[in-house]
Amino acid sequence: MKNGLFELDAAILCAGSVVGCKEREGPLGNLFDMHDTDDRFGQKTWEKAESEMQRRALGVALAKWGRDRDSLDAILAGDLLNQCIGSAYGLLDFGVPYFGLYGACSTAALGLLLGSVLVSAGYVRHAAAVTSSHNSSAERQYRTPLEYGAQRTPTAQWTVTGSSAFILGSIREGGDPCAQIVQAMPGIPLEMGIRDAANMGAAMAPAAVDTLERYFEASGTAPTDFDAIVTGDLGWEGSAIFHDLLYADGIETAPMYTDCGTMIYSRHMQDTHAGGSGCGCSGVVTAAYFLPKIISGEIRDMLLIGTGAMMSPDALKQGQSIPAIGHLVRIRKGN
Amino acid sequence: MKNGLFELDAAILCAGSVVGCKEREGPLGNLFDMHDTDDRFGQKTWEKAESEMQRRALGVALAKWGRDRDSLDAILAGDLLNQCIGSAYGLLDFGVPYFGLYGACSTAALGLLLGSVLVSAGYVRHAAAVTSSHNSSAERQYRTPLEYGAQRTPTAQWTVTGSSAFILGSIREGGDPCAQIVQAMPGIPLEMGIRDAANMGAAMAPAAVDTLERYFEASGTAPTDFDAIVTGDLGWEGSAIFHDLLYADGIETAPMYTDCGTMIYSRHMQDTHAGGSGCGCSGVVTAAYFLPKIISGEIRDMLLIGTGAMMSPDALKQGQSIPAIGHLVRIRKGN
Repeated sequence: MKNGLFELDAAILCAGSVVGCKEREGPLGNLFDMHDTDDRFGQKTWEKAESEMQRRALGVALAKWGRDRDSLDAILAGDLLNQCIGSAYGLLDFGVPYFGLYGACSTAALGLLLGSVLVSAGYVRHAAAVTSSHNSSAERQYRTPLEYGAQRTPTAQWTVTGSSAFILGSIREGGDPCAQIVQAMPGIPLEMGIRDAANMGAAMAPAAVDTLERYFEASGTAPTDFDAIVTGDLGWEGSAIFHDLLYADGIETAPMYTDCGTMIYSRHMQDTHAGGSGCGCSGVVTAAYFLPKIISGEIRDMLLIGTGAMMSPDALKQGQSIPAIGHLVRIRKGN
Repeated sequence: MKNGLFELDAAILCAGSVVGCKEREGPLGNLFDMHDTDDRFGQKTWEKAESEMQRRALGVALAKWGRDRDSLDAILAGDLLNQCIGSAYGLLDFGVPYFGLYGACSTAALGLLLGSVLVSAGYVRHAAAVTSSHNSSAERQYRTPLEYGAQRTPTAQWTVTGSSAFILGSIREGGDPCAQIVQAMPGIPLEMGIRDAANMGAAMAPAAVDTLERYFEASGTAPTDFDAIVTGDLGWEGSAIFHDLLYADGIETAPMYTDCGTMIYSRHMQDTHAGGSGCGCSGVVTAAYFLPKIISGEIRDMLLIGTGAMMSPDALKQGQSIPAIGHLVRIRKGN
């Protein structure tokens, strides 16, 4: 440990991604493993649909891995629903030791981070990091039910309907891992006075900047050491703030920088205002877009900073502002 | 790793406990570090009061430790409130890398488990495991606001108003630890058909039994190897079921067994029906009652099985039953 830096040696053995119809229609649509045409995934409620997405995402990941649930020693999972029921119900059938996480939209990175700790330190052989979000369940919980037809503001993001599952193993235990998690920097919660649940990008950008700057300092690296620097779901608004804050500190990330929230929907063809958000956003974009590029060698070294806004609707009604966090994992092409 | 068993070498360096007035009036009342006479802790809302409890619990723990927040490398925290805002807002001021957990009422044990992993594997030098629950914030979120005066059933438990904070460090790094976390067994979520949010003991007991039986098998231990076998918050109803289920499998824990939910209130003098529950229940009882007994040597070796019911009110309205989990940590007197 040096200034909060975690040295890890975990391998991402495989990943599964499941999305809804809007995500399927987006620019990355044909990369995802599975999609549903009405976002219900055969269920009667949006919450059950979200659980079903997690069940399918982990099922797909296990199928790619060629093993069954008995080979999994731990699941780390969480989501945006109250009491994280997307995960609790979705992963119940697997019967695997379960670590419940809450990191809001940073959960994919938080799961990769803590899962990598468990396998790197030898506590488990294989762990799954799973998360999800569902536009319909999130909107009615955080804002208003979709049926109300509420007007969205320009800074509002669109909660991704999607679930990702990553299977992690130790590099030392062999196989031929092609993507490795070699370092991580846990986030520190920051609150900068944003009270608008329709502007989460602004709330989260400072936390992502804080984590990235701490990472550069602790690791002795610079932006140009990486092929890609990727934030979770700052969206168009938050990404611009992220870039400006770093630039003010003399750090230029522009050519390498992108954000999963700006990638998953077409800015001009799909009306999502400030881009995508939700736990599933960085999860499915990492699983379906970045991971194959790491494995092919097109991207050899990247930083993923999962970003999360940890407010609740009640907290905002009580006049609180939005605490945000950014968890960083460094993903590198293996041998 | 053997059959899911985690071998750890963490020390509980100190702990803080903060409770409300009913807990202060209970049989363990004078053991807690701090209490409030109106459960508001100087705040205008119950949710803010819960955050304030966490802030004070960690503050007390740091004060006992004789160090400030700069000595903390990680906080692991969670609570029952939607989006875990008790933790997110309560611990914001500390500015420490933060791992958000969701384990429902098992969170104290889950934090001790994952915090011990981080210090045992050398990822951090010192970690804090913090959790809380508040009767008034929990009742209005999970059931009905207190003002409704809803009739409670005999199996209903009383959510503890309390917060605990434990400071963990590595045994190897010296000092004179008096309580050590030497093993852990993560829980597997189980769902046995209970749909009654006023009977969480029945939902959680099978999960606690499952974890304990897996622990005995993996560790080669038996109930008589321990001075105390303690469940988190099964309460009177769940404890009886726990005992019956184990007995049916030929395991007798009776003389060593107790449950934090049955200890924190007087069964006859305080009307709590089936006993205490909530993340704070096992947290404050462990911090204020068991930890000093471990340090004094009165208890030399104990198992704490934090129990959690991971449902949400929405899930129950949608006809789901209650998934439960039990996370086990073995706490032993150090040198």
